[in-house]
Amino acid sequence: MTNPHLQQMVQDLENARRKASFPVADMTRFLRGGAEAVENLEKVRAVIEKEPLFNKLNMIFMSRQEQLAHAVRVAERLIEIAEEHGWSEEEFAIMADLNDMLNPLSLHYGAFMAVIKAQGTDQQIEKWYMAAKRHAIVGCYAQTELAHGSNVAGLNTTATLDTKTDEFVIHSPDLTAAKWWIGGLGTTATHAVVQAQLIISGKSYGPHLFIVPVRSPVDHKVIDGVQVGDIGPKAYGGFSTMDNGYAIFDHVRIPRENMLMRFSKVTKDGQYIAPVHAKLSYGSMVKLRVGIVIDAGWTLAKAAAIATRYSTVRRQFTDPADPSSELERQVITYSSVQHRLFPLLSTAYALIISSHDLNAQFNDFQKQLAQEDTHLLPEIHATSCALKSWSTRRSTDGIEECRKAMGGHGFSAFSGLSQLFADFVPSNTYEGDNYVLAQQVARFLLKQLQNVTQGKRITSVTAEYLELLKLGSPDTPVAIPSEKDLLDPDLQLKLFGTRAARLVAGLARKLQAGRAWVDLNMDCWEINLAHAEYIILRQTISAAKNLQRSSEYTAIAKPVQKIANLFCLSLLRQSSLASFLVTSTILPKDVHLVDNQFVVALAEVSDEAVGLTDAFGFSDYQLATVLGQKDGRAYEAFWTAVQSNPINSQDGREQFGILAKRILHRRDNKDYIRMAKL
Amino acid sequence: MTNPHLQQMVQDLENARRKASFPVADMTRFLRGGAEAVENLEKVRAVIEKEPLFNKLNMIFMSRQEQLAHAVRVAERLIEIAEEHGWSEEEFAIMADLNDMLNPLSLHYGAFMAVIKAQGTDQQIEKWYMAAKRHAIVGCYAQTELAHGSNVAGLNTTATLDTKTDEFVIHSPDLTAAKWWIGGLGTTATHAVVQAQLIISGKSYGPHLFIVPVRSPVDHKVIDGVQVGDIGPKAYGGFSTMDNGYAIFDHVRIPRENMLMRFSKVTKDGQYIAPVHAKLSYGSMVKLRVGIVIDAGWTLAKAAAIATRYSTVRRQFTDPADPSSELERQVITYSSVQHRLFPLLSTAYALIISSHDLNAQFNDFQKQLAQEDTHLLPEIHATSCALKSWSTRRSTDGIEECRKAMGGHGFSAFSGLSQLFADFVPSNTYEGDNYVLAQQVARFLLKQLQNVTQGKRITSVTAEYLELLKLGSPDTPVAIPSEKDLLDPDLQLKLFGTRAARLVAGLARKLQAGRAWVDLNMDCWEINLAHAEYIILRQTISAAKNLQRSSEYTAIAKPVQKIANLFCLSLLRQSSLASFLVTSTILPKDVHLVDNQFVVALAEVSDEAVGLTDAFGFSDYQLATVLGQKDGRAYEAFWTAVQSNPINSQDGREQFGILAKRILHRRDNKDYIRMAKL
Repeated sequence: MTNPHLQQMVQDLENARRKASFPVADMTRFLRGGAEAVENLEKVRAVIEKEPLFNKLNMIFMSRQEQLAHAVRVAERLIEIAEEHGWSEEEFAIMADLNDMLNPLSLHYGAFMAVIKAQGTDQQIEKWYMAAKRHAIVGCYAQTELAHGSNVAGLNTTATLDTKTDEFVIHSPDLTAAKWWIGGLGTTATHAVVQAQLIISGKSYGPHLFIVPVRSPVDHKVIDGVQVGDIGPKAYGGFSTMDNGYAIFDHVRIPRENMLMRFSKVTKDGQYIAPVHAKLSYGSMVKLRVGIVIDAGWTLAKAAAIATRYSTVRRQFTDPADPSSELERQVITYSSVQHRLFPLLSTAYALIISSHDLNAQFNDFQKQLAQEDTHLLPEIHATSCALKSWSTRRSTDGIEECRKAMGGHGFSAFSGLSQLFADFVPSNTYEGDNYVLAQQVARFLLKQLQNVTQGKRITSVTAEYLELLKLGSPDTPVAIPSEKDLLDPDLQLKLFGTRAARLVAGLARKLQAGRAWVDLNMDCWEINLAHAEYIILRQTISAAKNLQRSSEYTAIAKPVQKIANLFCLSLLRQSSLASFLVTSTILPKDVHLVDNQFVVALAEVSDEAVGLTDAFGFSDYQLATVLGQKDGRAYEAFWTAVQSNPINSQDGREQFGILAKRILHRRDNKDYIRMAKL
Repeated sequence: MTNPHLQQMVQDLENARRKASFPVADMTRFLRGGAEAVENLEKVRAVIEKEPLFNKLNMIFMSRQEQLAHAVRVAERLIEIAEEHGWSEEEFAIMADLNDMLNPLSLHYGAFMAVIKAQGTDQQIEKWYMAAKRHAIVGCYAQTELAHGSNVAGLNTTATLDTKTDEFVIHSPDLTAAKWWIGGLGTTATHAVVQAQLIISGKSYGPHLFIVPVRSPVDHKVIDGVQVGDIGPKAYGGFSTMDNGYAIFDHVRIPRENMLMRFSKVTKDGQYIAPVHAKLSYGSMVKLRVGIVIDAGWTLAKAAAIATRYSTVRRQFTDPADPSSELERQVITYSSVQHRLFPLLSTAYALIISSHDLNAQFNDFQKQLAQEDTHLLPEIHATSCALKSWSTRRSTDGIEECRKAMGGHGFSAFSGLSQLFADFVPSNTYEGDNYVLAQQVARFLLKQLQNVTQGKRITSVTAEYLELLKLGSPDTPVAIPSEKDLLDPDLQLKLFGTRAARLVAGLARKLQAGRAWVDLNMDCWEINLAHAEYIILRQTISAAKNLQRSSEYTAIAKPVQKIANLFCLSLLRQSSLASFLVTSTILPKDVHLVDNQFVVALAEVSDEAVGLTDAFGFSDYQLATVLGQKDGRAYEAFWTAVQSNPINSQDGREQFGILAKRILHRRDNKDYIRMAKL
């Protein structure tokens, strides 16, 4: 079936596309980190998009067990492809990133191998890392326990040195110490790096890392003394392709040299040698958080792309501006849709742009860390915590908002948005619960504030804004001379800096007044949000400026500037307004100025919207959606997808026919036979 | 395995339970609507909780197809039980409510039978309703189309009268007109009430309702000319037990008398007789929305109960107040957890309490409507729209917030929260998208405002607050003489009324200034939120007052008063603060007063929290959670649940062993054999 309505949808998306004022390819290059990165991406994409195994739409009808088994096959195929093409680890990473699906080997690469490389001695790396690389073993990283997630110091699994046999005895004293949630452990891993309390001669030295076998790499049988299994389905169908597992250890013996000893060491005779520098192992936590921030941006980008495109082709209600038209009004033109979608589109951009910066900072930090220099740690730690908390929360809330803005069809699994949400929402909790991380951000800023009040130099670039406290009284609003000045980057940063600084100062005052730290969690949370918003806005503004000056990217400087303005104004007007008002940064009587400029900023982005979603460079294959396809054929694709529903097959219909007839035919058959004769 | 930690959890919940200051059974009676209602509930509960078929925890490992087939069996068993016990329709409804699981017959009762009863003639009711009641047919209600959800007037399915044969011809002109999302249609229904454009002699009379056969009740074969099937999985695994379906009609002929003709009629010779009163059919829409508001309260109540109990037994981090203790600190004592959970607990209470009132109003309205008197319609329509939008949004956001507050385990399907969210979140969209309904609320209030400005009487109780606009200038804050006055119900209502009134006046000013209605969707949304909050607060306050005066419920007046205060203060401090500040209802400098009293209100509820969750009267069976059980044995229950994971069965282990070995053994076997020898 085809009809003018369906043709119109194709046309609507094309028209919207043509309105973009900038070269889309330039923007893609900028977002993806340069021409070479785009080339690599395209090269890998061309290969993997030929693989029907990787088509995610096919997975929608699978049970969880089928999805998990499917994921192991995907993991295997990824290895094969890399070998077939002789791809490097970097190219493998691009492929995994494009495949964008957790599988039981994801943490083999991302955690097991990574932690061995980071915390193993050279000999350990030679032995374990190389075996892992060849997949002679597959591993996982076992930290969380049933009763201990956030508090690593409180872990209860023990690793007791037996000097007689030169072994560690790994033991779970009770059910609460069972390792739990461990990705890769449920069905697949042969080995685990286990966080356990190191005990020597009855004395505890705190959590350390041990390589413990859990299944034989020969026959995959579970090792004696280990109970291991999959912890079952996750919320919203998230992580369905990951075998999060549990393990209970009953006095499992491993050689002493299975303790990862790059930093701490235990000698044969039971001497404990402490690490030179306690913080040298912090790098991997920061790295994980940096990765989460990058994902937050790109995941929200997918949701915003799908929702923007679908809202462009979806029409609903007569257009009051053109009531006689046969066509209803494009949903994307409704102010409620624009107010909800465009700020999220700008947030995705701002997050991607600032994650470039964060990544660069992290690389600098890594280089220094390699020299055993940790002076960059406090700032990168605080920045990565703040951005992790902010971005995971905003990204997941944003995906769900995009889904709601798509109307009823957003609730179909085929929209593609629910899987994005389901797989990303646990990031609010893992690698540091957002509210716990917020406390660390606040502590960092309080320390910086102390420098300010003691007249010392602020050592942190991101906390520079605390200097603003020296200007004027704490109640003086930031002057907004005219509405248009809200587009001035300096004024924008002054607003965001002042707000953040005043929140930090407010927390300091409460502490001085004797309020307990544990009662001030929510103050920390507000500070975290304010700090993150300042950093992201600053980096987005600075990117826009740099683009203007660059020869390669001049043509996209303007749309990035529009994005920065919309990002800034949407925060001012929407989620963060209360905190700007409470801190007297903005006066209630001036909010109408923000209002007006917010509407202007939305209008500025409106014509660019579809171009901006194209510029992310997602293929239909990657988006795995029927509603947000590039060609606008949402309803045709939805129809096609539904036809392969096994419930609609001959077998399915028979099964459900039998079940229905058990109800229809419960009584004597006069009734239903009569009703069948119409 | 058992240990002191697990014992402590049981103890912690018991201790928390003992702290409640009020008789829990009294509160349950009040919430559930009296002693008789509780008795009925207990009677039905005792029967259905013996049914292993109804145990939802067993469904977590099923595929969607299995869940759907299971749901048909549940539907059948519900019918059997009602027959075995000779239960009334009311008792059947209590049972379905307790079972709390959509099934392919849910809309047979809730929509198909309901609409025939409401809009069928007496003869039609006799024929169709009675057959449906005996399950000789099972039906669905087919309104939404692939390209038309919100805009009923824009539906494209046609019902063309053929006077020669005295039939209507039901037809879907193209794919976009396919009926879509129709619950019960996917695999089960034999008949559909179809919304279609009535066409007589080439003239269209707008959407009307027609009973159309889709499958034979004899052999369940699809009727000629109909394409029908299931539209596939839904977001987050929601509605998995409902067969939302599609149907395309190719000139399907039905007798003329299959049009529902209580209001509009079509005669044999093709005359159209318009309904006496166009609004007489509005009752059923209002009724559905009232039902959604009730569900919003009770669904959030479940989430709050689970999260509060689990946070009571969960301990994390050393207690700074007692650093030498072996025990870590109860998570429920963290301020971030209290700030997130307790306001949601109070919201669940406030919603349940105000839904009593809404229900009573609806019954009055129904009685009048039966007399063809519609004068109560505008207000009940606005109230039900406002409360539907507000409650669905807050309830679903709240469930997800509860889930996040539970830490990592909240992300397990066994927490029970994800299914609550997944099944309730589409309520933001169905029966009127929240942002569309908000416009109707705003229109109602603008009309009331006109009365005020024209010096007329306000005809609406819920909009009385518009009279406040006559006091003082629009910028004068509501005076808060002292912090304690924030607990004065009159002041509370003045704050909420003033805020709402000023938002309505602001919208009127923008319209007068020439702004287009379509550009002001977000103003409508803010008004909807403010209006709903005013109504709910007013009803909660009034309930607390009534309880104080009642002889039966005096003992629970105080905790309900605490709930009202916390509900009020959490809105003031959290989600709605910005709008109180922007409307100058509260001055930024006075926010610290709100802050302080909010902390007091949280503390007041803190000792009551577990008692308040018990008072909802949920059984463990109903909550279908391992983490929020009444006995506090969260970790033992989680462990037990995971053991029945089919992936951990012998078969499952073998399947995944084979898959893993395909990866491990890709190269020659020296490597993995060596690694197996530790």
